[in-house]
Amino acid sequence: MNQEYSQTDTGEEHDDLDYELDKRAVDAILSAVEEGDQSRLNALLLPLHAADIADLLEQIDDDERNDLIGLYGHGFDGDILTELDESIRDEVIAVLSPEVLAGAVRDLDSDDVVDLLEDLDAAQQQTIMGALEEGERQAVQRAMTYPEESAGRLMQREVVTAPTHWNVGETIDFIRQSTTLPDQFYHVILVDDQMHPVAYVSLGKLMSSARTVLLADITDEGFRTIPVDQDEGEVAYAFNQYHLISTPVVDASDRLVGMITIDDAMSVLDDEAEEDIMRLAGVGEGSLTDPVIETTWQRLPWLAVNLVTAIMASLVIAQFEATIAQFVALAVLMPIVASMGGNAGTQSLTVAVRAIATKDLTGSNVWRVIRREVLVGLINGLIFALVMGVVGVVWFGSPALGGIIAVAMVINLVIAGLAGTVIPVVLDKVGVDPALASGAFVTTVTDIVGFFAFLGLAAAVLL
Amino acid sequence: MNQEYSQTDTGEEHDDLDYELDKRAVDAILSAVEEGDQSRLNALLLPLHAADIADLLEQIDDDERNDLIGLYGHGFDGDILTELDESIRDEVIAVLSPEVLAGAVRDLDSDDVVDLLEDLDAAQQQTIMGALEEGERQAVQRAMTYPEESAGRLMQREVVTAPTHWNVGETIDFIRQSTTLPDQFYHVILVDDQMHPVAYVSLGKLMSSARTVLLADITDEGFRTIPVDQDEGEVAYAFNQYHLISTPVVDASDRLVGMITIDDAMSVLDDEAEEDIMRLAGVGEGSLTDPVIETTWQRLPWLAVNLVTAIMASLVIAQFEATIAQFVALAVLMPIVASMGGNAGTQSLTVAVRAIATKDLTGSNVWRVIRREVLVGLINGLIFALVMGVVGVVWFGSPALGGIIAVAMVINLVIAGLAGTVIPVVLDKVGVDPALASGAFVTTVTDIVGFFAFLGLAAAVLL
Repeated sequence: MNQEYSQTDTGEEHDDLDYELDKRAVDAILSAVEEGDQSRLNALLLPLHAADIADLLEQIDDDERNDLIGLYGHGFDGDILTELDESIRDEVIAVLSPEVLAGAVRDLDSDDVVDLLEDLDAAQQQTIMGALEEGERQAVQRAMTYPEESAGRLMQREVVTAPTHWNVGETIDFIRQSTTLPDQFYHVILVDDQMHPVAYVSLGKLMSSARTVLLADITDEGFRTIPVDQDEGEVAYAFNQYHLISTPVVDASDRLVGMITIDDAMSVLDDEAEEDIMRLAGVGEGSLTDPVIETTWQRLPWLAVNLVTAIMASLVIAQFEATIAQFVALAVLMPIVASMGGNAGTQSLTVAVRAIATKDLTGSNVWRVIRREVLVGLINGLIFALVMGVVGVVWFGSPALGGIIAVAMVINLVIAGLAGTVIPVVLDKVGVDPALASGAFVTTVTDIVGFFAFLGLAAAVLL
Repeated sequence: MNQEYSQTDTGEEHDDLDYELDKRAVDAILSAVEEGDQSRLNALLLPLHAADIADLLEQIDDDERNDLIGLYGHGFDGDILTELDESIRDEVIAVLSPEVLAGAVRDLDSDDVVDLLEDLDAAQQQTIMGALEEGERQAVQRAMTYPEESAGRLMQREVVTAPTHWNVGETIDFIRQSTTLPDQFYHVILVDDQMHPVAYVSLGKLMSSARTVLLADITDEGFRTIPVDQDEGEVAYAFNQYHLISTPVVDASDRLVGMITIDDAMSVLDDEAEEDIMRLAGVGEGSLTDPVIETTWQRLPWLAVNLVTAIMASLVIAQFEATIAQFVALAVLMPIVASMGGNAGTQSLTVAVRAIATKDLTGSNVWRVIRREVLVGLINGLIFALVMGVVGVVWFGSPALGGIIAVAMVINLVIAGLAGTVIPVVLDKVGVDPALASGAFVTTVTDIVGFFAFLGLAAAVLL
C-alpha cells in the first residue's frame, strides 16, 4: 500500500518527467553509498520499484554500481535482475555474492528465470540453476528446450484449468482449495479430457455469475491458442491485434502446455519496436550501457557498408571528372540531388518497413502501395525541381543548369519512392529483415541515380 | 469457441505469416462482393476478428471497400470502426447508412467511442453522439472534457470498488449481485469513505482466498494511481515499467474517477514507438491508407528542411570552387566524408532519442553518454581514416589527399557523436520533440563539418 509514494512520484510539479529517475534522489542514494551507510541506503531504495532500481544501476558508473551492490547485500531482489539491461546484468551477477544471487533467483517465476538464463554464459547459468529448487529447475530446463524467442520461452507453465462440464460453483471451490495457483491469472481454461484447451472464462465473468451457471455458457469471445514454437514477435502481434489478456499455449498436438499473459507480450512488443528503430538507424543490438569498444564494434559494420556505398557513388562522380573540371558549379550542386533522393528514399522505406512489420503491407495491396509511393515521389520531385530550377538560375545565372538539376531531381525522387518500397518488400520475400538491410540498398540507389542523372545530363547538355 | 478457426489461422505451413491476411482469403471475399453474394460474404467475414476485417478494409481499394460495406450492411460491427486507421475511418463512416452506424456505435464501450470521436469532424461527431443512449452520451461527453491523449480519455469509468473493511465473501456476493460490471476487470479497488483508492486486490487472489479473509490482508503489491490529466505516453510507460495490469485513475483531489487496463496501454505504447520511428525518418503522422496528395503534403516539410540543409552544405562547397577546379579529385571524394558523418550522427542520435523516450538518458548519466559517443566516434573515425587514407593513396596516388581525407574523417565522426547526443538532449530540454527535429540538425552539422574540414584542409595543404 505505498500510495503515498505513488503520489509523490506522480506529483504535478514534474509533469513530463513523471517516471524519470530524479537526479536529487540518485545523488542522495550515491552519497549514502559513499558514506557506507547501509540503513540509509536501504531506506532510500525501499520505496523504489525493482524496475527503477534497475534503471538506477544502469545510469550510475561502474564503481558506484559495485559499491552500491556490495552495500545493498541481501536486500538485492531477483526482480531487479530481470529488469536490468543484458550488458549490466552480466556485471551485476559477477559481483553478487553466491548466497545473495541464490536468494534473488529463488524468488523468481520460472519464466523470469528462463529470461535471465538466455543471455548468460554457461558458468553463470550453472550458478543460477544450482540455486533453484528441484521442481523449479526442472520447469526451467523444460522451457530451455523450446527455441529462443519462442512462445515456449515466454509462457508460464502454471495454468488454471477446468473440465468443460463444470459449473461456476465447482470451479470457485476448486480454485479456493488449490495450493499451486499461478501468481497472476485472468482466465480459467476449459479443457477436454485430452487436455486440449477449447475455451476460457474470464475471472470477472466467473465471479459475477451464479454458482449453478455452467462454464460452457459464459465463455469469452475471441478465444485463441498460440503454438508453443511461435516466434515471440508474432505472439506480441496477436496480443495487440486481438486484444488478448492471457491465452493458452499448445504443443504440436494441440495439448495445453502453458499460458502467456499480456504483460510479457507488451514487453516483447516494446522490444521489437526498439529493435526496428535501431536497425533502421544501423545501430545493431546495442544499449546505452554497453562498453565503448563493444558499441564501436556494433556500429562499425553499418559504417563499413555505408563506406562501400559512398565509394560507389564516388566512382560515378569520377566518370564525370572532365565535366566537373569545366563546370565547378556541378560539384557545388550535385550533393543536393543525392541528398534529397536519400531523404525521400528513407521516408518511403521507413513506411514500407513498418507496414511489413505490422502486416499492413501484404500481397493484397503491394502494387497499390508502390504506385502510391512513386506518385508521391513524382509530385514532390516536381515541386522541388521547380524550387531548385529557380535556385540554379538565380545562383549560377544558368537556365541550362537549372533545367538539369530540375530533371535530375524528378528522376531521383521517383526512383527513391520506387526503391524505397520495392527493396524492403523484396528483402522480406527472400527472408532478410527489411529493417536491417533496406537503408544501405536504398541509399546506394539514390546516390548513384542522383549523381548519374545530374552529371550525365550536364555532360550531355553542357559539353 | 472458434478454436477451429484459430487453428487454421495459426497453421504451421504459414510460419512467419501467421497473422497476415491471406491473399487467397482476400480474393475470395472480393469475388463475393463483386458477385453481390451477401450470404457468402457474411460467411467469409464471420470467423474474422474485427481487427482483421479492419485490416482487410485498409488493404483493398476505395471502390472495393465501398461495395463491401454496402453489401455487408447490418453485419458491420462497431469494433471494426475502432480498429480502422483514421484516414479510412472517415471514409467508412461516410458510406455507412445512419442506422448501421448507430447500431455499430451503440455496442461500443464509452472509452472506444471517445477514441472514435477524437479523430472525426464535428458533423460526424454529431451523428455518432446522436446514436448513443443517454447515459452513454453523458459518459462520453464527460470524457471529452479531459485533454486529448490524456489518461482521462483512455480510461473506462466503470470500476469495481469495495470499502477497506470488507472481507472476501462480502465482496464476491456484491459482485455477483451487481448489474453494472465493466466488461473487463482484473482488480477490486479498495476505497476509503471519500472514494480515495488506497489499494487493490486481484481477482485471482480474491477467488483463491477463504470467504472470511479481509481484503486488506490480500492486497496486491505495486499499487499505484494515475492522475487523470497524465499524458497517455506516460501512462503506457508506467504500465510497461511497473508491469501493471489495471490501475485506478484519480482526479486532482485523489478521488477515483476511472480505471485504465493494460490492453489500452499496450496500444498506446505501440503507437508511441511507431510515432518515434516515423518522426525519425521525417514522415510525419501518415499511414499507408492516406491519399497521395495528403502523403505528399506530410513529407514535403521534411524534404524542404533537408533542401535548406543541402543548400547550406553547397554554400560551404562553393567557398572552395577554386580549389576544386584545380583538384577535381576533391569533388569525387568529398561526399564520402559527409556521408560517413551523416550515418554516424544518425546512429548516435537514434540511440539518444530512444534513450530519452525510455527515460534511460537522464541528468544522472548524460555526461557519461556524451563522452561515450564521442569516444565511439573517435575510434570508428580512426579506423575509417586509415581505410580512406589507403584508398586515397591507391586511387589517386596522392599521400597528401589520403592524409586530408583521413583527418577530415576523424573530425567529422567525432563531431557526429557529439552532435548526435547533445542535439537531442538540448531539444528535449527546451521542449521540442527530439525524434522530430534532431535529424535535420545533426545532418546539417555533419554535412557542413564534413565538407568544410575536407575542403578546408585541402585548400591549406594542396594549394
